[in-house]
Amino acid sequence: MTGKGESRAAPARPAPIAVDTMGGDHAPAEIIAGAVAAVRDHGVRLVLVGQAPRIRRELDRFGISGEIPIVHAEEALDMAEGALASRRKPRSSVAIACHLIKQGRASALVSAGSTAGVVATARLRLKGQQGVLRPAIAVTLPTRPRPTVLLDAGATADVKPETLVQFAALGTAYAQIRLGMERPSVGLLSIGAEPAKGDKVTRNAHELLANGRHGLHFAGNVEGHDLLEGVVDVVVTDGFTGNVALKTMEGTVRMALAEVREAMTGSRTAKLGSFLQRRQFTDLRDRLDSETYGGGVLLGLNGTVVIAHGASQARAVTSACRLAHELAAGRIIERTRDQIAATRTPSRFGRLMHVDRDPAETSPDRPVDRPAAERPAEERPHDTATTPPDGADIASGRGEPPAP
Amino acid sequence: MTGKGESRAAPARPAPIAVDTMGGDHAPAEIIAGAVAAVRDHGVRLVLVGQAPRIRRELDRFGISGEIPIVHAEEALDMAEGALASRRKPRSSVAIACHLIKQGRASALVSAGSTAGVVATARLRLKGQQGVLRPAIAVTLPTRPRPTVLLDAGATADVKPETLVQFAALGTAYAQIRLGMERPSVGLLSIGAEPAKGDKVTRNAHELLANGRHGLHFAGNVEGHDLLEGVVDVVVTDGFTGNVALKTMEGTVRMALAEVREAMTGSRTAKLGSFLQRRQFTDLRDRLDSETYGGGVLLGLNGTVVIAHGASQARAVTSACRLAHELAAGRIIERTRDQIAATRTPSRFGRLMHVDRDPAETSPDRPVDRPAAERPAEERPHDTATTPPDGADIASGRGEPPAP
Repeated sequence: MTGKGESRAAPARPAPIAVDTMGGDHAPAEIIAGAVAAVRDHGVRLVLVGQAPRIRRELDRFGISGEIPIVHAEEALDMAEGALASRRKPRSSVAIACHLIKQGRASALVSAGSTAGVVATARLRLKGQQGVLRPAIAVTLPTRPRPTVLLDAGATADVKPETLVQFAALGTAYAQIRLGMERPSVGLLSIGAEPAKGDKVTRNAHELLANGRHGLHFAGNVEGHDLLEGVVDVVVTDGFTGNVALKTMEGTVRMALAEVREAMTGSRTAKLGSFLQRRQFTDLRDRLDSETYGGGVLLGLNGTVVIAHGASQARAVTSACRLAHELAAGRIIERTRDQIAATRTPSRFGRLMHVDRDPAETSPDRPVDRPAAERPAEERPHDTATTPPDGADIASGRGEPPAP
Repeated sequence: MTGKGESRAAPARPAPIAVDTMGGDHAPAEIIAGAVAAVRDHGVRLVLVGQAPRIRRELDRFGISGEIPIVHAEEALDMAEGALASRRKPRSSVAIACHLIKQGRASALVSAGSTAGVVATARLRLKGQQGVLRPAIAVTLPTRPRPTVLLDAGATADVKPETLVQFAALGTAYAQIRLGMERPSVGLLSIGAEPAKGDKVTRNAHELLANGRHGLHFAGNVEGHDLLEGVVDVVVTDGFTGNVALKTMEGTVRMALAEVREAMTGSRTAKLGSFLQRRQFTDLRDRLDSETYGGGVLLGLNGTVVIAHGASQARAVTSACRLAHELAAGRIIERTRDQIAATRTPSRFGRLMHVDRDPAETSPDRPVDRPAAERPAEERPHDTATTPPDGADIASGRGEPPAP
């Protein structure tokens, strides 16, 4: 097994993208329709995972049975299903797709399933990349003139300062591929521009990021009102704050558009205009919705997972497949590995981050999905089987009591 | 001095409201104009604090010199000035106004000055209410049909679970007076409805709030997209997350209105309507801006501070004076004290919160404004001179190393 992680995405042509046909409000019909368009119109190589007879029936409708490989999976994660599904359903379409990535038969995964269920399954099955403390979900905010990458949008609620530095590295690698930028600028989400502003973790992360030894382009603190201003290319924060900020955006867009609509229909003169603008409003809301929450990419695992919005229709699925292909072709796994290796500067305490194993210090750094007591010992998110022995124990002690 | 805190606001007619005439982008002219309107049109009793000759000149213009008492203050906090101003300017108008409150000559303070400067000065001069771990800024979100109180909007970035329970108590007392509700519902801001969602502090706060022994009406977790939906009356979170959420709302409203404006002017048919709606948009933006960030009330100190928006014009100042009067008349200090006392249930560890003095545990609970190293030992936020000796040491060790 050793060394497999390194060679997995090395071939010139990456393995196909695994598509979870069972996840999402409109699965499997819209998922498969979107996948077919990705293959036909954009030349993306796919493998469809899910109930084979059903997938075949759908493909028949497009007249391309046999052209797209199918891998059968008996179970599916429910949309309402949370993190526990990762263990309850070891043969879910998401779990099987992860297995394909581990085997090198797929290079990334696309799913429109429940975010909590997909993240938990991917963490359990793919394990963390070597040296990565915690995974993060990157979302792309619809800023202008170019988008801003925000992470973490909810994978890791409790972080250490070093985790935020790693998120900066993951976000940089992601923005390089996604936005085509050589040296994306990184902002740290806080509550004031000054380094001394913020909570303790953020202040300490600022210190680590400001020392400049990590090779990242750190641009200082940004605030909530900067998120949609495009002032930096990547915004880094913990999964709790990031998730709250993202959902606050969603809610505020809805409220603002509702208020605008009311203001518009208030004056008689405006009614004609209002009628004509209704579709534009709906488009705007959909754009803000679909381009923000739900369209996330889980980074930091031994495999990339594109989490499409649960309400995705065919077009959104096609976009997700293209993004997954783009990330695999851009060698996101290798890029993030290199960035993470480059950020292994001595921590504030003069120790190397990756040898810091003091369990007392790492206790706040627990995963978001469920309390430690519920999680069996073998589910340690970073105890990877595919990393070499000298790297395997780097993060295995983090945030978890030792296995009995 | 003992007992003074208890009797301060007890008289049937509360002492006048101290108005900082020097703080704000439009100080002193608009501040004084707003204050005059509060006196004339709403019968609010005020005392104006600031440079006396200048105040007299402004009052002359309204022809009411001599009707409103003036207390001279030589210095003013700059709008750009941060927390350090609290020590650098012991004779600032805000510091003098706090002094009036301590002497019982004023019942509350209104300032449109720099939030960081006002908060730091008030913390230093007024000290924390007996038993209160940390102060919080409450803001009123423009939800419908009735507003929602969000706290903390930025006073205390690092909290303990017990601090969040106290914020729930402060917010309940505030909503009772401000919204006239007997038993306001309280939501805990998190990243999922389930109690196990969120970061460690929030999960533990959920546990404390859910045990029901505090007499509060706890309604469970709320998420970012619920903030503007009016699903609960009070939303509780730490000052870091609250500040990020609030500023994210601000930024999102601006972005959404800019997008809407662009969408509207995109079609020729819409141009007339767009012209007519421009004022409505500006009104809407102003309403969302002024009613959210900046219009905060600092709770948990031995005196109430209404922090008006820095850009406040006369009308906003009048509203702030009326709010301060309303809170003083509603005996906010006594109400919060009672609520805090009622929430002193044994903590998760079976200890009473107010005897928990382990310095190792309290280290993350540091004030937001500047690093501990910068703050002299005598500035311990809760080492109050007016509380009885058996209460005075309750919180004095919190978040600070012992005085050398």
